[in-house]
Amino acid sequence: MSTTSPLPLAGCAIALNEHVAEAVERLCADAATLGLKISTLDGGVRLVDAGIEAPGSVAAGLRIAEICMGGLGEATLVPGSDWPTQVQVRSSMPVLACLGSQYAGWSLAASKEETGGKKFFALGSGPARALAAKEPLYAELGWRDQGARGVLVLEVDRPPPAVVVDKILRDCALAPEALTLVLTPTRSAAGTTQVVARVLEVALHKAHELHFALADIVDGIGWAPLPAPHPDAVEAMGRTNDAILYGGRVQLSVRGSDDAARLLALALPSRGSRDYGKSFAETFREAGFDFYKIDPALFAPAEVWVSNLDSGRSWHAGATNPGLLETLWLEARA
Amino acid sequence: MSTTSPLPLAGCAIALNEHVAEAVERLCADAATLGLKISTLDGGVRLVDAGIEAPGSVAAGLRIAEICMGGLGEATLVPGSDWPTQVQVRSSMPVLACLGSQYAGWSLAASKEETGGKKFFALGSGPARALAAKEPLYAELGWRDQGARGVLVLEVDRPPPAVVVDKILRDCALAPEALTLVLTPTRSAAGTTQVVARVLEVALHKAHELHFALADIVDGIGWAPLPAPHPDAVEAMGRTNDAILYGGRVQLSVRGSDDAARLLALALPSRGSRDYGKSFAETFREAGFDFYKIDPALFAPAEVWVSNLDSGRSWHAGATNPGLLETLWLEARA
Amino acid sequence: MSTTSPLPLAGCAIALNEHVAEAVERLCADAATLGLKISTLDGGVRLVDAGIEAPGSVAAGLRIAEICMGGLGEATLVPGSDWPTQVQVRSSMPVLACLGSQYAGWSLAASKEETGGKKFFALGSGPARALAAKEPLYAELGWRDQGARGVLVLEVDRPPPAVVVDKILRDCALAPEALTLVLTPTRSAAGTTQVVARVLEVALHKAHELHFALADIVDGIGWAPLPAPHPDAVEAMGRTNDAILYGGRVQLSVRGSDDAARLLALALPSRGSRDYGKSFAETFREAGFDFYKIDPALFAPAEVWVSNLDSGRSWHAGATNPGLLETLWLEARA
Repeated sequence: MSTTSPLPLAGCAIALNEHVAEAVERLCADAATLGLKISTLDGGVRLVDAGIEAPGSVAAGLRIAEICMGGLGEATLVPGSDWPTQVQVRSSMPVLACLGSQYAGWSLAASKEETGGKKFFALGSGPARALAAKEPLYAELGWRDQGARGVLVLEVDRPPPAVVVDKILRDCALAPEALTLVLTPTRSAAGTTQVVARVLEVALHKAHELHFALADIVDGIGWAPLPAPHPDAVEAMGRTNDAILYGGRVQLSVRGSDDAARLLALALPSRGSRDYGKSFAETFREAGFDFYKIDPALFAPAEVWVSNLDSGRSWHAGATNPGLLETLWLEARA
Repeated sequence: MSTTSPLPLAGCAIALNEHVAEAVERLCADAATLGLKISTLDGGVRLVDAGIEAPGSVAAGLRIAEICMGGLGEATLVPGSDWPTQVQVRSSMPVLACLGSQYAGWSLAASKEETGGKKFFALGSGPARALAAKEPLYAELGWRDQGARGVLVLEVDRPPPAVVVDKILRDCALAPEALTLVLTPTRSAAGTTQVVARVLEVALHKAHELHFALADIVDGIGWAPLPAPHPDAVEAMGRTNDAILYGGRVQLSVRGSDDAARLLALALPSRGSRDYGKSFAETFREAGFDFYKIDPALFAPAEVWVSNLDSGRSWHAGATNPGLLETLWLEARA
Repeated sequence: MSTTSPLPLAGCAIALNEHVAEAVERLCADAATLGLKISTLDGGVRLVDAGIEAPGSVAAGLRIAEICMGGLGEATLVPGSDWPTQVQVRSSMPVLACLGSQYAGWSLAASKEETGGKKFFALGSGPARALAAKEPLYAELGWRDQGARGVLVLEVDRPPPAVVVDKILRDCALAPEALTLVLTPTRSAAGTTQVVARVLEVALHKAHELHFALADIVDGIGWAPLPAPHPDAVEAMGRTNDAILYGGRVQLSVRGSDDAARLLALALPSRGSRDYGKSFAETFREAGFDFYKIDPALFAPAEVWVSNLDSGRSWHAGATNPGLLETLWLEARA
C-alpha cells in the first residue's frame, strides 16, 4: 500500500456547510410531505425530527443522505436484482463527501450528571463535523470547514441534551440559530435509508484503515439493498450493516501504483473478515455490544471494483451474499 | 385482514393542487420540448394535449405521472432485466399520492343529448379529483383537498365537451382559468407511460379491495416494463395492463399485525386471479368489453414484497412472467 | 428501408443554444465541486477545462453530456448487471438532441502554419454545431439553430488555437463573450463519461447510414457500461467505443412501415460488422489509425429494440458481449 500520503484535502476551498445550506432549507420547507417535524430549541437551534415523534420517510432519508455528504453526492433508489429496492450513492469528490462529511465520527457524550437525567451518546455525522474538526482525521485530511451555518446528523432516539447542544455550538463556533440538527433513529425509515447510503463511505473508511492514500481516491459509486427498518434498535442497526457487508457493491476510481490499487481491491471486501457470515446483530451481541471487539475488517462492502486511472487497469474482488440476506430479511415463501 | 381502519388521511393538511401547481406550470412552459400543445377553451380552461394532435412523448408521460401523484412521488426510467425500459415509481405518501390523487376514479360522462354530438366518457385522475371528492373513497380516506387551482388528467382521444368541463369546474369549485386538463390517449407515448406508472397505485387499490387498512401503508415503490404504445385503443390499454399484471413489481412498507401484512402479500399478486395468463386485451374482449365482468383480483402487480415496520418482517409473493410479455410484445427473433 | 425522407426537423422552432444556456451557466457556477477550471481567452471566449489541467469528474461528464444534447436528454448513472456502473441516456427528441446537437460532426482543423505551432484537429459536438451548420447533415435535417449564445464540446488535450476559435466564432456568428468551449480529453473521467453517453447517438447515426428516415425516429433510450478511462489516448478512445459496440443497448421508437422498422433492428447491431469481436483500439491500429478504413457498420450498439408505434410491433436483435468487455477491462481475479 502507498506509504506516502499527502494531505488529501489540502487547499480545498469548498465551504461545505454553506454549499449544503440551500438543501437544508428545502428539507425543512418540505417537512409536511417528507414526514418531518421541525422545531426550535430555546436558544434557537433548529431540530429536524426525522423519525422520533415524526414518521419520517424513505424520501427524507435520501435527502438527509445527500445533506450528510455536504451536497457533494447523490443518493437515489434503483431496482436491485434480488432484494427489490436498492440505494445508489455516488460522489465525484468522495473523500470530502464521505470522510470529510458523512462519516459518523464525532463522539458526543454526556454523563447523567451533565444531562440531569439519562446519559447520552451519539456519533455526529455530516458537514458540521468539519466546522468542529475535533477528530484526528481532519489533521490527516488537511482541511476543515469554515462558515457561519452548520448542519449535523445524529442517529438518536431522543433530542440531544442542552449540554451536548452547547458543546456542538461551541466547537463549531456557531450562533444557535445557525445550527440545524437532523435526528434520525436507525429504527426509522429515514434512519435506515441514510445509513445504507453510507455504503461508499464504508469503503472509503476501510481504504483509510488499510492505509491507502486517500488523496488517490478520485471517484466512487456504490449500491446496497434497502432493508425494512426493524423496531428493535440492535436489529435495525444490524440490518443496515448487513445491507453493506453482504449486499454492498462499490466501484472506486483511484490514482497511483497498480500494486496499491490491486491490494486495495483484494483487501477491501468484507469476506476477508473473521466475523464474516453471521448477521451483524448476532456478531454485535457476541461481542458484548462492544463495537471495538468486532473485527474492523468486517466494516466493508461485499464486492468491489477498483480502477486505476493512471494505468487504466481494474480489479474486481468479493461477492454479494443475497442468499444470506434473504434468510435474514425475508420470511419463507408460502 | 384488518377490520378496524381509521380514516387514513384524517388531519392531512397538504393542499395537493397547490403543491403541484408549479410542476404544472413547468409542464406547460416546456411544451415545445415535450411535444405538447397548450390551448385555452373559450371560458379560460387550459388544455394540455399530450397525444391527440400533439405527438406527446415518454418524457411528458413521466412528468404527467408525477403531477398525477400530486407531486408526492417520482416517476423515472430505469433499465429492466428482460424488457429494456422500465418505469420506476415511488412515494413516501403512497395513499395520498396514489389513491387520493393518481387513481382514475372520477367518472365523467355525457350523453349525446348533453354533448350535442357523440357521447363522452372518461375517468378523471389526478389532484382535482380531491377538490371534487365525488367518489365514496374520499369519505373512507377522511380527506379532501381545498384550493383555488386544480389539475385533472383524462385518458381521452378528444377534448371533453363543454358540459363535462362545466361539471368539473362546478364540482371542483374552480374558476375556469384556474383549471388545467391534461389529455393523454392511451395509444400515445405519454399515455402509455403515465398508465404504466400506476403500478404502485394498482397495488394500493387492490390492498384497499382486500380491506387492508390504508392507514397502515406508509411507503411504496414499484417497477413495470414500458411497452410500445399500440395504435389500437383496446390493445394499447391491454398492454399497459399487461405491463403491470405480468411485469409489475411492488414493495410496500406497512404497519400493523404480521398476519395482516402476510395475508396482504399472499393475496396481492395478480396470479391468484382466474383470468391470469392471457393478454388483458383478450380477457377484455372475452368479457364483452365490460370491465366489471373481469375478475377484480386480476388488477394487481405480478410480484410483491410487503414489509411490516412494526415487526421488521417481510413477505415476498408472486413472480413476473417475462416469457408471456415477450410473446405478447416482441416479434420472433430473426 | 424508407426512401422518402421528409426533412425531419423542418419547422422545429426550438432555439437549442438558448435552451441549454442556463445549464451551461450552472456547469460553470459549480466548477469547484465538478473539478472544472473556467478561464477566458483574450477575446472573451469562455473555456471550460474538464480534464486537461483540471481533474474533471464523472459528475461533470454527465452534465456535459446533457449540455451536448442541447438539454433535450438526460444522462444518469444506473447499476449494470455485469460491469457495475452504467450510463443511461434518453431523449424524447432524439434526432434533434443526438444528430442535431450531440454528434461530433464538425471538423475543426488548423495547419502548423495557421497555428504557428503544432497542427490542430478536433471534432466539435454540441449545440453550437447547429449555429454554424457547416455539415451537409443540417440540410438533410432541414433545420439550423439561431441565437446569440453558443456552446461547443471539443474532445481535445489542449485548448484550440486562436485560428480555430476565430473560425468557430465566425461560422456561428457569435460575439466572443457569447461562446463557451468545453474541453474534454477522452482520457479524462469527464471525457470518457460524455463519450459513452453517446450510445443513443451512435444508434441514430447508424440508422441514418442505413437510410432509415430520421423523421420517423420519435424516442430513444440507451445504456452502456462506463469503463475506467485509460491514460493512453488510443486505448481511452478504444474503450469508449468498446463500451458501446460490445456493451451498448438501445431502444428506439419509430413510425412508418413494419418492414423498415424490422430491417432497422436487424441491421443496427454492431455484430453485423466484419470488424466485430476485437478491441476497438486493436481495430484502429490495424487500420493504420485511419477511421475511414474501419467498417462503418461497426459503429453501433450491441443490442437493440425497435418499436413501431404505427403498428405496435417490436423487434429485438443483437446481444451484448460482457465476456469480451471483462477480458478487455478487468484483470484476472485473484
